[in-house]
Amino acid sequence: MSGDFGPRETVPSVLAYARRNPDINLLVVGQAKAIESVNPRLFSEPNISLVERSSVVSCDDRPSSVLRRGMDTSLYGAVSLVADGRADACVSAGNTGALMAVGRYLLHTHPGIERPAIASAIPTATGNCFMLDLGANVDCSAEHLFQFAIMGSVLAYAVGGMESPRVALLNIGSEEVKGNEQVKLASRLIQENSRLNYIGYIEGDDICRGRADVVVCDGFVGNVALKSSEGLARLLGGALKEGFNRSLYRRMLGFLARPVLAELQQVMDPSRRNGASLLGLRGIVVKSHGAANSDCFGHAIEQARLEVMQKVPFRINEHLCGLL
Amino acid sequence: MSGDFGPRETVPSVLAYARRNPDINLLVVGQAKAIESVNPRLFSEPNISLVERSSVVSCDDRPSSVLRRGMDTSLYGAVSLVADGRADACVSAGNTGALMAVGRYLLHTHPGIERPAIASAIPTATGNCFMLDLGANVDCSAEHLFQFAIMGSVLAYAVGGMESPRVALLNIGSEEVKGNEQVKLASRLIQENSRLNYIGYIEGDDICRGRADVVVCDGFVGNVALKSSEGLARLLGGALKEGFNRSLYRRMLGFLARPVLAELQQVMDPSRRNGASLLGLRGIVVKSHGAANSDCFGHAIEQARLEVMQKVPFRINEHLCGLL
Repeated sequence: MSGDFGPRETVPSVLAYARRNPDINLLVVGQAKAIESVNPRLFSEPNISLVERSSVVSCDDRPSSVLRRGMDTSLYGAVSLVADGRADACVSAGNTGALMAVGRYLLHTHPGIERPAIASAIPTATGNCFMLDLGANVDCSAEHLFQFAIMGSVLAYAVGGMESPRVALLNIGSEEVKGNEQVKLASRLIQENSRLNYIGYIEGDDICRGRADVVVCDGFVGNVALKSSEGLARLLGGALKEGFNRSLYRRMLGFLARPVLAELQQVMDPSRRNGASLLGLRGIVVKSHGAANSDCFGHAIEQARLEVMQKVPFRINEHLCGLL
Repeated sequence: MSGDFGPRETVPSVLAYARRNPDINLLVVGQAKAIESVNPRLFSEPNISLVERSSVVSCDDRPSSVLRRGMDTSLYGAVSLVADGRADACVSAGNTGALMAVGRYLLHTHPGIERPAIASAIPTATGNCFMLDLGANVDCSAEHLFQFAIMGSVLAYAVGGMESPRVALLNIGSEEVKGNEQVKLASRLIQENSRLNYIGYIEGDDICRGRADVVVCDGFVGNVALKSSEGLARLLGGALKEGFNRSLYRRMLGFLARPVLAELQQVMDPSRRNGASLLGLRGIVVKSHGAANSDCFGHAIEQARLEVMQKVPFRINEHLCGLL
């Protein structure tokens, strides 16, 4: 039901994914009518089934009110399937705060994790890095940042296929003296953990340079950094499009240059990286971008599948147990 | 002497600026030898003169050690010219932390301003906005953010020519409940000031949309947001260049598309906006990007001239007096 477009985008995505992956069973949680109005034959697929829920969380609903009164929502229903062991993972494009709150309430966090974090792949000059937290926590202590470093490192290893992921703390300078107290203390904590490949501080412009595989920051900083960059990319994309549209001659040039521009879109295309992981929960929850189209939503499902295959929560727990 | 390239870039810039602006007197502070080795005839210009200083602040020098032992540096010398009333403004591409520390020590802040902030123009879909703080303060209270709102608003009015600048607080959501305590409290403080045109919270991707004329945030967030965006822009620029270089045919296309690509560069060109203002000091100090080339450095000089013409510190002080 979720996201800015609801079943209109998620239903075709689920159908395409189910057909491409006959070994995966997809449980679709929500209002049967709304779902079937998009595709009346969705549930005739052998590996798609319906779990009916009568209501929907809106993006304005407060997480606390969803926890109190939202048991009949599709979001709550999807997370409880994971909590009950009926599903291996949950994917939602809905209200992030509510998803996090319901996730914490029903799935709990690993011992040693005080707060879950939102992590996602970010494009770099050399491929991808994983950045966290992207907005779940507005105030983070040094211990929280340290826990993010562990979880991000596990994700980069398990899902990103990085052997010994380079972990960095996002800061406003690379010198020892720079940064606030939380960051300085977190730096010491991460350094002391021999299982983390810590490379020190990086600055904002180092993220895209690909200097680190895991970029750790508090949720306020991470969210603003990610969204500002997306905003600038959109501005530049718009300017380029407009530039190639200013005359007939330029439109012709733009037509000929389509393969180059398509490649550029590939680099900056957020849909290829859609699917942020809610790390730290004792279960897999993947958040799709709210504005995800059908293709894009499929990437979030795939991200969930990868985390299931790679047992991400189990690995995080294992790493944490090593600390006790 | 300052910046990554020293006199090699600043000397040609100063010469060009002096010739274009015969009514402006430029005092060049630094080592005569190093300056004259770039252009031995610099000081024969009628409106350029030398203020000799024997040493130079490096980018690794700690602000505190510059304060204690740096009286003979060009940076200290340039700021003291403003403090002594011998110059109307100071421009430097040197160590930002040291420049801020020397500025605070020699020029002091306005009554009512606890901490100066670094402000700069940022490209948006509709032109420019002014963002602060960009890295002077890693931990900001609500009062600091409120003071930034006042200073940014004055800068946007006086230098940006914006009649009633729309002031926004950078946050991770536009709803009332979002954000950390400092941001929530700052929102109330700004709202209560009737001389500020406060439009509420904006998110990272709203900056480039041009939703606000003044974007207020703490220095950690602002620095990371600015640098991450620059990093992504560089990544995309590189990908575009590479895309138009992959075959002879594509190089030809790229050649034909040069005017379009040049326009794009204009949009994202940081040099056009070079010159960050150290606001809150009782004197004008403009920080040029360390990697500024000669053209770029000229923009920082021009920014300083504009602030002198528009009496920016005087206007900030006036606004603050209205609060007492």
